[in-house]
Amino acid sequence: MSRRVNQRRSASRLVVLKGRQDRAGVVWLVGAGPGDPDLLTVKALRLLQTADVVVHDRLTPQPILDLAGPNARLIDVGKRKSHHTLPQDDINQLLVALAREGLMVVRLKGGDPFLFGRGGEELQQLRAAGVEAHVVPGVTAALAAAAEAGAALTHRGLAQAAVFVTGHAASGGEPDLDWASLAKANQTLVVYMGLSTAPTIAARLIEAGRALSTPAMIVENASLANARRIITTLGALSQAAEGLEGPALLIIGEVVSLASAKPLAEIAADVARAARS
Amino acid sequence: MSRRVNQRRSASRLVVLKGRQDRAGVVWLVGAGPGDPDLLTVKALRLLQTADVVVHDRLTPQPILDLAGPNARLIDVGKRKSHHTLPQDDINQLLVALAREGLMVVRLKGGDPFLFGRGGEELQQLRAAGVEAHVVPGVTAALAAAAEAGAALTHRGLAQAAVFVTGHAASGGEPDLDWASLAKANQTLVVYMGLSTAPTIAARLIEAGRALSTPAMIVENASLANARRIITTLGALSQAAEGLEGPALLIIGEVVSLASAKPLAEIAADVARAARS
Repeated sequence: MSRRVNQRRSASRLVVLKGRQDRAGVVWLVGAGPGDPDLLTVKALRLLQTADVVVHDRLTPQPILDLAGPNARLIDVGKRKSHHTLPQDDINQLLVALAREGLMVVRLKGGDPFLFGRGGEELQQLRAAGVEAHVVPGVTAALAAAAEAGAALTHRGLAQAAVFVTGHAASGGEPDLDWASLAKANQTLVVYMGLSTAPTIAARLIEAGRALSTPAMIVENASLANARRIITTLGALSQAAEGLEGPALLIIGEVVSLASAKPLAEIAADVARAARS
Repeated sequence: MSRRVNQRRSASRLVVLKGRQDRAGVVWLVGAGPGDPDLLTVKALRLLQTADVVVHDRLTPQPILDLAGPNARLIDVGKRKSHHTLPQDDINQLLVALAREGLMVVRLKGGDPFLFGRGGEELQQLRAAGVEAHVVPGVTAALAAAAEAGAALTHRGLAQAAVFVTGHAASGGEPDLDWASLAKANQTLVVYMGLSTAPTIAARLIEAGRALSTPAMIVENASLANARRIITTLGALSQAAEGLEGPALLIIGEVVSLASAKPLAEIAADVARAARS
């Protein structure tokens, strides 16, 4: 057994020497932002253009992947036989293996790698394996959604806090959240991946005392050409979420009263027209 | 009185015609990110390079301002006689006036414009004045701080929520926050502009039941060359904040146990060295 391990280790050393003249590989965990390639950071763009390998999820928009260099290998870890996602452990091992081949690996994560992206686990595994790794923050989807809607998450007088949670439960059941805290007024609640559990989330918040009339919105595909906002109330959120497929996030709180259903660009055009006339 | 208003209006129309051949001005509220120019979005960079006027705060790093076009006019609204900041109303009026001159105005906001940036108020005033305005989201400082420290704000098993608040009270006194909610475990609390009120914040959280041993860190100048992390506990936070001047944010919660005091780049170099030997 111990010999086998040793053999394997020497084999992997050999690959390093062969592949990259003894250069150690490196993994960059890179926030891809909300989807619009224009909302990549300058750093993310540069890394994408120079990567040997780009490891991405199913939802990464094609225009972002198109920015990778012509010789880069793209690996989609979000789409496997019968649409099963590659388990997180396998992704971690893949990243380690690629780095050990001496490659410059960009691991693209939607939004920011450290806000509901499981990037923390990937970094831990890379470190444990002795692989050099860096993290590049990104624009998280909620901020893109707020910018497009014209509703500041912490607008003075309407919200003194912004709370980010995920509607996706690790166990697959109901998200295990502190509903009493989340139901407090004067704050903005952002739920990532909350579309399928929107009925539960709305019900728990209402039970915990949040008013039915609290403004709420569902934002699909924030920052993309097909972005859509459904502006509603907490009481009607469950019904509004019916039939939607996402990816989407929920924003619940008084600041949503400032949100425009119309795309901000259209409003701007209206305003400009009115000013000229 | 009415004649005077009319005169003024015609005068301003004249300026529009003279300055920009009847082109209506526009204001972009742009997130400048945490400070590293590499963490500007591609869109922010492009707008900065093409702006007629850049309206910025005292803390905007010079390397970001240097990206503005050679003919752009830079207006610092954060520094006035005896270091007084231009009141928000005056900033709003300035933005409106510049747009009415037919100019393309970039209003740079540190981090993201809609997370504790008062960008919401600026957008409201611009809209009320009939000025075309758009919002470009940015990388907020907390995400840059988390990325650098290697501590995911929502690391599985350690935090199911990330809560963003400001330590700066509108009234100038103690921040009016819901301490009972903020003191709950299993979440990460991020306090923007919390350095001067760190003693109060720590005391209120402890009174509300948060353990003295809760990991906490102070991050100064996230993403910049002079970035600094002080890793401590909630119980020792007040002492750790003494003598610091900021700009800084506080991150409090179990995920801080993952943070490295050493810059991630140095750790990466160590790891790479160890792997080669």
